[in-house]
Amino acid sequence: MHFDYSDKVKHYQKRLTQFMDDYIYPNEQTYVNEINKENPFSETPPIMEELKQKAKEAGLWNLFLPESEYGAGLTNLEYAPLCEIMGRSSMAPEVFNCAAPDTGNMEVLVRYGTEEQKKLWLEPLLHGDIRSCFSMTEPDVASSDATNIRASITRDGDEYVINGTKWWSSGAGDPRCKIAIVMGKNDEHAEKHKQQSMILVPLETPGVTIKRMLPVFGYDHAPHGHGEIVYNNVRVPAGNMLLGEGRGFEIAQGRLGPGRIHHCMRTIGAAERALQILCERVTNREAFGKKLAEQGVIQEWIADARIDIEQARLLTLKAAYMMDTVGNKEAKAEIAMIKVVAPNMALRIIDHAIQALGAAGVSDDFPLASSWANIRTLRLADGPDEVHRRAIAKYELQKYRKHWREKEHAR
Amino acid sequence: MHFDYSDKVKHYQKRLTQFMDDYIYPNEQTYVNEINKENPFSETPPIMEELKQKAKEAGLWNLFLPESEYGAGLTNLEYAPLCEIMGRSSMAPEVFNCAAPDTGNMEVLVRYGTEEQKKLWLEPLLHGDIRSCFSMTEPDVASSDATNIRASITRDGDEYVINGTKWWSSGAGDPRCKIAIVMGKNDEHAEKHKQQSMILVPLETPGVTIKRMLPVFGYDHAPHGHGEIVYNNVRVPAGNMLLGEGRGFEIAQGRLGPGRIHHCMRTIGAAERALQILCERVTNREAFGKKLAEQGVIQEWIADARIDIEQARLLTLKAAYMMDTVGNKEAKAEIAMIKVVAPNMALRIIDHAIQALGAAGVSDDFPLASSWANIRTLRLADGPDEVHRRAIAKYELQKYRKHWREKEHAR
Amino acid sequence: MHFDYSDKVKHYQKRLTQFMDDYIYPNEQTYVNEINKENPFSETPPIMEELKQKAKEAGLWNLFLPESEYGAGLTNLEYAPLCEIMGRSSMAPEVFNCAAPDTGNMEVLVRYGTEEQKKLWLEPLLHGDIRSCFSMTEPDVASSDATNIRASITRDGDEYVINGTKWWSSGAGDPRCKIAIVMGKNDEHAEKHKQQSMILVPLETPGVTIKRMLPVFGYDHAPHGHGEIVYNNVRVPAGNMLLGEGRGFEIAQGRLGPGRIHHCMRTIGAAERALQILCERVTNREAFGKKLAEQGVIQEWIADARIDIEQARLLTLKAAYMMDTVGNKEAKAEIAMIKVVAPNMALRIIDHAIQALGAAGVSDDFPLASSWANIRTLRLADGPDEVHRRAIAKYELQKYRKHWREKEHAR
Amino acid sequence: MHFDYSDKVKHYQKRLTQFMDDYIYPNEQTYVNEINKENPFSETPPIMEELKQKAKEAGLWNLFLPESEYGAGLTNLEYAPLCEIMGRSSMAPEVFNCAAPDTGNMEVLVRYGTEEQKKLWLEPLLHGDIRSCFSMTEPDVASSDATNIRASITRDGDEYVINGTKWWSSGAGDPRCKIAIVMGKNDEHAEKHKQQSMILVPLETPGVTIKRMLPVFGYDHAPHGHGEIVYNNVRVPAGNMLLGEGRGFEIAQGRLGPGRIHHCMRTIGAAERALQILCERVTNREAFGKKLAEQGVIQEWIADARIDIEQARLLTLKAAYMMDTVGNKEAKAEIAMIKVVAPNMALRIIDHAIQALGAAGVSDDFPLASSWANIRTLRLADGPDEVHRRAIAKYELQKYRKHWREKEHAR
Repeated sequence: MHFDYSDKVKHYQKRLTQFMDDYIYPNEQTYVNEINKENPFSETPPIMEELKQKAKEAGLWNLFLPESEYGAGLTNLEYAPLCEIMGRSSMAPEVFNCAAPDTGNMEVLVRYGTEEQKKLWLEPLLHGDIRSCFSMTEPDVASSDATNIRASITRDGDEYVINGTKWWSSGAGDPRCKIAIVMGKNDEHAEKHKQQSMILVPLETPGVTIKRMLPVFGYDHAPHGHGEIVYNNVRVPAGNMLLGEGRGFEIAQGRLGPGRIHHCMRTIGAAERALQILCERVTNREAFGKKLAEQGVIQEWIADARIDIEQARLLTLKAAYMMDTVGNKEAKAEIAMIKVVAPNMALRIIDHAIQALGAAGVSDDFPLASSWANIRTLRLADGPDEVHRRAIAKYELQKYRKHWREKEHAR
Repeated sequence: MHFDYSDKVKHYQKRLTQFMDDYIYPNEQTYVNEINKENPFSETPPIMEELKQKAKEAGLWNLFLPESEYGAGLTNLEYAPLCEIMGRSSMAPEVFNCAAPDTGNMEVLVRYGTEEQKKLWLEPLLHGDIRSCFSMTEPDVASSDATNIRASITRDGDEYVINGTKWWSSGAGDPRCKIAIVMGKNDEHAEKHKQQSMILVPLETPGVTIKRMLPVFGYDHAPHGHGEIVYNNVRVPAGNMLLGEGRGFEIAQGRLGPGRIHHCMRTIGAAERALQILCERVTNREAFGKKLAEQGVIQEWIADARIDIEQARLLTLKAAYMMDTVGNKEAKAEIAMIKVVAPNMALRIIDHAIQALGAAGVSDDFPLASSWANIRTLRLADGPDEVHRRAIAKYELQKYRKHWREKEHAR
Repeated sequence: MHFDYSDKVKHYQKRLTQFMDDYIYPNEQTYVNEINKENPFSETPPIMEELKQKAKEAGLWNLFLPESEYGAGLTNLEYAPLCEIMGRSSMAPEVFNCAAPDTGNMEVLVRYGTEEQKKLWLEPLLHGDIRSCFSMTEPDVASSDATNIRASITRDGDEYVINGTKWWSSGAGDPRCKIAIVMGKNDEHAEKHKQQSMILVPLETPGVTIKRMLPVFGYDHAPHGHGEIVYNNVRVPAGNMLLGEGRGFEIAQGRLGPGRIHHCMRTIGAAERALQILCERVTNREAFGKKLAEQGVIQEWIADARIDIEQARLLTLKAAYMMDTVGNKEAKAEIAMIKVVAPNMALRIIDHAIQALGAAGVSDDFPLASSWANIRTLRLADGPDEVHRRAIAKYELQKYRKHWREKEHAR
Repeated sequence: MHFDYSDKVKHYQKRLTQFMDDYIYPNEQTYVNEINKENPFSETPPIMEELKQKAKEAGLWNLFLPESEYGAGLTNLEYAPLCEIMGRSSMAPEVFNCAAPDTGNMEVLVRYGTEEQKKLWLEPLLHGDIRSCFSMTEPDVASSDATNIRASITRDGDEYVINGTKWWSSGAGDPRCKIAIVMGKNDEHAEKHKQQSMILVPLETPGVTIKRMLPVFGYDHAPHGHGEIVYNNVRVPAGNMLLGEGRGFEIAQGRLGPGRIHHCMRTIGAAERALQILCERVTNREAFGKKLAEQGVIQEWIADARIDIEQARLLTLKAAYMMDTVGNKEAKAEIAMIKVVAPNMALRIIDHAIQALGAAGVSDDFPLASSWANIRTLRLADGPDEVHRRAIAKYELQKYRKHWREKEHAR
């Protein structure tokens, strides 16, 4: 057991931090300003493509992909601390082509895609030429239980026909978003976890309608956005099926692990940034005759923030380590734990930072309110906290049951 | 001691609830739809004026004003439960001419205004013809300590000259907003709590510029909004001074008490509505083979919500009772307590409701996310929780010190 | 609605407070010292009987009993604030003959006892000549669900035969404890809530064995104590049955309401005392160059304590008011709420007081640690918090269902 | 960075766990039974010496000592997980000669003791022949600020004269306790952190009086116990001074680091045991028609317990790693963090376990209540949480200030 980052990681951390200082933080406001106010989902701020170019040149591109054929060849444990740095700015992950849901979608294509699927969709995604979305959650059922999903994917000759309504298809608002991975039922009579499939649906296919973009606590998250998409008799070639009929859950499982590490590490980065903003502010403001930084209550917030960040980071890194060494399945408890821990931790810290900043904190003069809203959704995305806690408890109780069985056998 | 509402209150509760059912809830979406998307601060949704007319006709108008000459003659204790009902919908208070900051401004004018000031500003406000704002908080200082306020109000012949930048002047975005009460320093050399004055500034006065409207967690709160206003050599007649030079703190104190009761009761109404939405949802959704309402964790949320609401309401009603019977000053501890209790309580409940609703909860399909954002600002407005807790502790510790003194005298 | 205590209540409060100052606080250490260290359950500290005599003379005796024939004729709302004062010292309730479980047992006898039962047991209890215990909880089942209770009460001719093991029969250690009310099953085939009966069992009956006294966080609570009692073929006359076979639940319900008010108000008294100890200490101790009372974190504890106490007291008083006006059944939600609120609130405050006092707080130099341990058991006694929260949620959800039904009927 | 225990550690874990299963758990009740009920501090339960002999034979002795001359030569990181296992039972650490305060005192002697001091006190301690105590905390001052300590150590010829009253001198009750390390002021005029010294005081020296043993939440912790010791003109040879006059703080600092790791890891062990007891119980008890283990609320407790334990353990192991690699001083923030995290985490878990067990949980039938009381003191010992949080905040704010300075220099 040891707790130092490898030299390779330290090297990347240094370069990434430098890039953030040089290009990201100074351009956060530019990015916001360049969003089309009249029609926010019509175009991407030009600064984004500029910065992507710079990131490519700097060799800070597609770092998320473990496979060396396409990516930087970093393990989860190596990529995690880099992902944290990117998480400090909400615009950063896209700059490095490391933004959700593209990362998850690329991983799916790398792992399960046919050569044709890779050529058509993986390559432009890897180049940052197009973006993608993931269409799973539905408005009419509790999607926390994925077996509830009702959209249908029906074979009809050489094609599949897709019908259903999805929402929270994040990224669907982006004019560059070309492809969706859609989850749906293709066999109601199969056993419960073999009913669902995943299929590639180009967004320009007839029958695909983005009904509306959903706001998150008042934010539209343009041009990325969160779409409600109606799939009405949408026909795609049979070759668009991913991995095979009834294997939707299997893909979802494989997709989830790294995605959760990414989300958690970005969340930790956002928490670190909030803590930094808080610390900077309280050393500069005075009330009732002393610096806010000297107020015991604020010191307590700072201490708890530091404690909570350190713990969440270690647990996330351990989960990444386990994924690398013993695999997603063995790491399932740890992955569920960080899914609960990281967003709740970050929300507390950001909330304290908002409280320390006063009214400025709820405005857009600081990235706190928007970060809070973003991260609040993570307590729901991929299942609410409560579902993950239930799973963790189940694993824990199994352990004891196993222990008892062993004891009984030993007698 | 007894805990039943009077017949008068029950009568109003019934009528108000009926009005909410008949006109408010069915028009919430209309109101949102009628906001000018291109230029949100340019006009008021027509439905608002329609409903105001209906409320006037129904005799549900200006209920907040205790003085019978202008208002309904309700005590704080009588008005509080009505205010709670209005708080269930963010559009409701304005319909009944009971919206902040107009209510506080009207109270100030009733209590401290000259005949001329009343005629010019109070009357149109009472008729709902114009709206008003309150310009106190400043961007560059910790306004939680009001002695930090720096804007200047300088006498120059028959006029006062106002200079300074204010933000979070709520309501300033509304095209009907005509008048601001501005707080600023008129004598730096006076004793600490006599340096500040309040003065009436028509928004059309030369030198008044609304620099921008501030968002709250992504919401613009149009057409009401929160303005950053620059006052640059703004000249108003000397008669616009309220109560007298150096009496700003005095007015602020008088203004605060009822305002806090209103805010807290509205907040309790919002919490009740969130709990209702949660309960309705969980009895209709199923996951993992049973209704969400049968999940123990969700039952715990519901129980804690009911407990917290009941307690917060009782404390707020007691504070209102004390204001009516022994006055604001004697009730200062209770007023500080509800200021801390109500928003925190409501935020917990709304957050749980959001969690129970899943992604729908963070969108605008339900009033949860917007309500959360609104109420989050109440933990900062009129001083952050921490300042109020400090005051409560001070009152508590004084009590003991007094007790000791009495004991010593008795020896 | 109004929030002042009646003159009658104020009068009693004043006299009771005076008695506490004169006789209780100065004798708390005496009481502890007089407990027999060798054999703690062998005798009662003489000071107790002395003080009981004084309380009788002062007319502060049996205040808990609403019925005027025996008691002071106080309503629940009138008695509650007096109960709070008694709760400030763990030895006080007995001094005023207002200690559990005697109060609950006396109420049962007043309400359901035959003339003979009253003469034999109620009268000596009302005079403070004997004490009593309540034998319900069992070691081998989750007693939070009272239908689990297994002890048997079987009719055999003119007698009932009782078999079973009970624990946490509080008060059983006291040499003056003469009578137990025992709950057990007399008919396994009756409907679920009609299987249980309550019966009077003199502790000297053959077959009754106090197996051991149970400690609570290391405290033996001598001479009162908590007994594990084995009932082995214990025979009592048929006339000892309370109210009738199968009516155990009915009695339990009637017994619970006032008992919960008492427990909660005493708990609030204990919380007030802890807050007082905290405030006194922090104004006298210094660390890192300033009084502890000036530390922001400690001020936050004080503020939250004051807020929580005020809220819990109001809710408890409202529950008492409802019991007086609309009855236990209508007040069931409020009674469940205070059962959850009061102990949790008090534990937080006492824990903070301990923290503020440092090591002294966990010792017996202050009544904090013992009070914490006492009150910790209240989160379990008469059902754990979780069972009560479940009930509150059920009542809340029923309300909505009822509301929907009414809406549907209206169509 | 990697997260697996070394083979050496795994080997020890296995042997230690076996020893716990074979000898500790089966003898916990024996130990309690063998405590002299009449005079609890008069003798040690014979089982303890038996088990110590077995542990010696098994080579599980003095594992805590990093120095290979005396100890097992384990680093802090290697010893930590073993310490966790010992922490599962309150009687275990002494069995392995790894109990506080002896471990801290032995470390002090190893590091700072003269040859004579080592021969006289270290050797018998290492053999487990005697025990020791640490006399620092004082009743009359806030010892959280160690500069408040008032006991005096005055040179007089070849002797030092010690005067003062100490309390919470843990272990002083044990008849085998022979030596105290006493902290006191020897120079009031020196700079603040050079006023205090530490000196060796044999408990049999004239003038040393154990005034009383202090209870912890009703527990006497016999025969170990917590003494209030009066030092009245106690004279010891000048050679008993440790390290030199005025170096008390220096020793305290060196002593603290490993001690905190030990306390935290034992606390984590206690939390694991509580979670095990909870899990075992809830899979065996039923209420309201289902196993407690199926109740969502209890599942949430289990999940949060697992999450919190994992995080606390990782942070503690990282602190141990840092102590081994970069030293106590660099690890000071992490050491302060675990001091706050571990006890609070364990208290939550134990409290939930108590709640799940019902009344059994507060009794001594399970090690929960006693464990809770033990660990509650750790939130106070060596400084309350609040002091450590303050320190953590200070380190955090310094980091930012340093950061700014570097930025400024770079310009």
